[in-house]
Order: sequence, then structure tokens, then C-alpha cells
Amino acid sequence: MSAHPLLIVGSIAFDDLDMPTGEFRDVLGGAATYSSLAASLLTRPVRVVGIVGTDFPDAHLAALSARGVDTAGVERAAGKTFRWHGRYSSDLASRTSLDTQLNVFADFSPKIPASYRDSPFVLLGNIHPRLQVDVLDQVARPRLVVADTMNFWIEGQPDALARMLRRIDLLVINDEEARQLSGIHNLVRAAADIRKRGPTTLIIKRGEFGALLFDEAGTFFAPAYPLEDVLDPTGAGDSFAGGLLGYLSACGEVTPASLRQGLYFASALGSFCVEGIGPSRLLEIGASDLAARIAAFARLVDHGGSLAVPG
Amino acid sequence: MSAHPLLIVGSIAFDDLDMPTGEFRDVLGGAATYSSLAASLLTRPVRVVGIVGTDFPDAHLAALSARGVDTAGVERAAGKTFRWHGRYSSDLASRTSLDTQLNVFADFSPKIPASYRDSPFVLLGNIHPRLQVDVLDQVARPRLVVADTMNFWIEGQPDALARMLRRIDLLVINDEEARQLSGIHNLVRAAADIRKRGPTTLIIKRGEFGALLFDEAGTFFAPAYPLEDVLDPTGAGDSFAGGLLGYLSACGEVTPASLRQGLYFASALGSFCVEGIGPSRLLEIGASDLAARIAAFARLVDHGGSLAVPG
Repeated sequence: MSAHPLLIVGSIAFDDLDMPTGEFRDVLGGAATYSSLAASLLTRPVRVVGIVGTDFPDAHLAALSARGVDTAGVERAAGKTFRWHGRYSSDLASRTSLDTQLNVFADFSPKIPASYRDSPFVLLGNIHPRLQVDVLDQVARPRLVVADTMNFWIEGQPDALARMLRRIDLLVINDEEARQLSGIHNLVRAAADIRKRGPTTLIIKRGEFGALLFDEAGTFFAPAYPLEDVLDPTGAGDSFAGGLLGYLSACGEVTPASLRQGLYFASALGSFCVEGIGPSRLLEIGASDLAARIAAFARLVDHGGSLAVPG
Repeated sequence: MSAHPLLIVGSIAFDDLDMPTGEFRDVLGGAATYSSLAASLLTRPVRVVGIVGTDFPDAHLAALSARGVDTAGVERAAGKTFRWHGRYSSDLASRTSLDTQLNVFADFSPKIPASYRDSPFVLLGNIHPRLQVDVLDQVARPRLVVADTMNFWIEGQPDALARMLRRIDLLVINDEEARQLSGIHNLVRAAADIRKRGPTTLIIKRGEFGALLFDEAGTFFAPAYPLEDVLDPTGAGDSFAGGLLGYLSACGEVTPASLRQGLYFASALGSFCVEGIGPSRLLEIGASDLAARIAAFARLVDHGGSLAVPG
């Protein structure tokens, strides 16, 4: 693996999940958790900055460490860990937030350890855009800065969000967020609008329908993997981002080709994530599982190399 | 072009379209119309069997002929042509049927001209499954039989549909129809179920989200083309099927590779269709437009040929 350290900043949480298959309590969750576990299958070191409460078991941090995730940047504060309670519809296509307790996450102010400041690859998980900018103020000029965001900030913090967008290279959001951010329904036009606001590259995630990449080389599409068993979509988007950054960090270079190939690794990690409750599947897979899934992706899109008009 | 004649059987209609961009009346429509126009960009001859009323202008048949479509099999009956009136939502994602007048189509009983009976490629548009079987009883053993169907027949004519499925090679339906037909929500499992009922190959269309192919070689995915301007989704699925059959007829062979490449031509013709009201865009494009769109598709999915796990 490479020596292009990846820094991931984001939430670490307990999730209470009401799924069609059962109720699951105190599930390890949070964007930084999913992203770092996904990235750790592809690159080292993966450095995490987040915050947990005194109720957070050392065993969870040990589980991350066991996967090669550097958790020295995880702050432990007095109080309880961020907790989210959600209920999914029977087809898993939609979910309702039943309860959100920010707890120690409410006062999260990311402090980047000195040893992390040279990280050339940075993933800013979905936190207040002002805090995302704070992180960038603490690191040396990274090679690639990727950020996620959500409707809550698009609606409530447009100015902070605009400042954040001017500081990043790549924004990863879903289709509804792209429409809300741009005010444009058509995704091709929405992408052009968003790319004028700062990030030269935009990835629009569409869940089970795949993901679109817009960059200076054009438009690219990578499908989601058609799965027989989907158990829990929680964290799929964060695993997607972690897979992308893990691949790019391992490659050490950001080019149109590495971004396009990276989208498949993103999609592969997203596909593993949804196969288990919480991050359970991410915690059990290894290099051979990843290689097999990537090979299956290659078959899924292999059109024989020739797309010539007959005649 | 090839000498592997393609036979298309289906509806020919007038559509009254209430679109966000305006109201359009007496628009040339029907599955056979869209499919044959799409196929005619790829292969000759394309033979159409359908029915129109005395109100159907010769100019419409002439427009089809001008694109190389053989309309000798279009029957003209006393009465009015099939008419559908639909209204689309502002984002074009859903539509409501305001009125359906079957007219002469109510008594449609496809009569295959003697000169059409050797057609090696057959596309059975969405009509009563009993009539789809009637068509197959009138033709010599084709190399490939493809059929479409819809919720109306899945719900109302399960026995006739089951008989039809045992007579065809390839079924092309959308995701909701696949779920309804199989009674299974997960599309990978639904596909396995449907393929046991007759067709060795299944294509599941997902509109703007692309299409999945399930055959003996595995699972394949082709995206829809991300367009800046979508005007009218009417006929997109039929154009998709026509593009697929046009490509396969031009190739003259049905292999895992030709099916996979054909899916891109299907998707390309579907993408042209939605760029105009009714079949207007299909009527104006030529070989160079098609070649350019196919080249754009190739860029959309070109991941540089390498999907290797780094390390």
C-alpha cells in the first residue's frame, strides 16, 4: 500500500436502527466510521478525527485500529456519544429520523493533530461547513480535498457552504442535494452550476442507481452493484466516499482515469456496506472479497470493448 | 446494412400530450411507430404490422417509409385510430392517462403478410399476450423473439402471459413490471424467477437510471445517457427496444457480446427519443448523430480499461 496518508474528519456515532429485518441498538455508526473502514481496505495510513463520549467502548476504537485505522485523532469528551435513531421503510427505499441526540458532537471543533497536518488526501465528512473550513485551515496544502454535505446545511448555512465550496476540489453529494444546492432539477445542468461554485469535480450519488462524475474530462457513470441481499443502507454514501478516497490515496495521483477507476471502488465499498447491518460487513471483508467484487463489476460493465455503429 | 429482416408488431396511435412545455395534439405515436423508427437507423428491412383507422394520414405512413420502414403490413380499418391522452408531471417523472380510445386497435388481430414470415428477428410490442402468440404461430422459426408487456396483462391475463413467455427468447420490461410479474421486490431475484418462466434473457428497463441485462453469461448494466434537455419520455421504452433489435438485426447474430453492445444502441435510441415531443427527434436524426451519441456513451463508461486493486 501507499504512503499517501488520508485524513478523514466526521461523525462517530451510535445508531439505533429499526429495519424490516429487526431492531438493532447501539450499532457503531457515523460518517467517519464508515468512510475510514471502507478506505482502510485500500490504503494506509487512514487518520480519523472525530469525537466520542465517555460511553463509547474502547472495543469500537480497537475494531477500527484492527483494520489499520489510526484513531489517535479521536477526541474523547465528557458526555454521551452522538446517537441517531432511524426507521427504514419495508423496501429500504426511504427512512425516517425518529430521534437525533447530538450530545458531544454538538460542540465538536475538529483539532487536527500535528502529525496529521501533512495528509495529502482529505475527506471532510458531513459536518457544519464552517468546521470543514476550520479543518482546511489546520492542514498543509493537500493534494485533494473532498467534501460531503447535506440538505440541512444547504438550507440553513448557505454562506458558510459557499465559502467551503471555494476551498475544495471535489464535492460528493446525492441527487436531491445537487438539485437543492443548485435550484436546478436536471442533473447535467445542476452539475455545471455547482462546479462553477468551487469544486472542479462533482460526484452525484444516486444510491442503488449508481453515481455520476463530472470533471474537466467530461461525464462518467459507474453503476451500483445489483445485489441479491440488501440489509441496511446506513453508511453506504460514507463507505462510497471512503472507497473513493482510499483508492485515490493508494494510487497517490488524481487524474481523470484514477477518478473513474476510483468510482468503481467507491461503488464496491458502498455495495459491501449495505449487505450487513451497520458496518458489520465492512468489518468482515478482506482483500480477496474486494478483488472478487471489483471483478464482478468489470463483468457488469464489459461490453466487449467495441461500440461501433453497424453498417 | 444487413439482410436480416426485422418484424415489429404493435400499436400505431395518435397521442395527445399534456407536457410541462405545452399541449401537443394528434402526435404520431404507438409502440410500433417508435420501435420501427429507432430500428430503421440501424437496419433494413424493418417490417411493421399494425392497424390504423381511416383518419390516419398517408403522410404519417410516408414518413415511416421515408425512414426505410416497410409499412405494407399496416392494416387500414374502418373507424378511428387508437388514441391516448396523457398528462406528465412537471419533472416528467410520472404521467396520468386522461383518456384511452382503443378504436380500431380494440379488434386488432395481427395478420403477418406472407413476405414477412421469414423474418429472423421479431419484436412483439405490448399487445394482448394471446395476440403475441398468434404472431409467432404465423412466422417461421425466428432466430430471436423479443417481447414487451405491461401491468395490465400481468394482472389481467396471467395464463395467456405465461404461454407467451414460454415462446420468447427475450423479455423487455421495466422494473415495476418485473416486480409485479415475479412478486419479488429485489430485481436480481425477480430476474432469476422470470427467466425460469421461458425467456432465457431478460432486460429490465429503469428509465433515466439505465437498464439491466440478465442472461446465461451473467448480469450486465448499461446507463441511460445523462441529457441536458428532456422534453417527452413517451415512446422511450419502445425506442429502446427498437434500437436493440435494430442493432441485433444489423449484426445478424445474438451473442452475449452483441446483446451487451446492443443495450447501448437501445439506450442511445431511447435518449434521442426523449429529446423531442413524440417521435420528432427520431425523425430528424441520422447516422452521424447516432455515431456521435454512441461515442459519447463510450466516453461515459470508459474507465481506462483497468480495474485493478491497488497494493
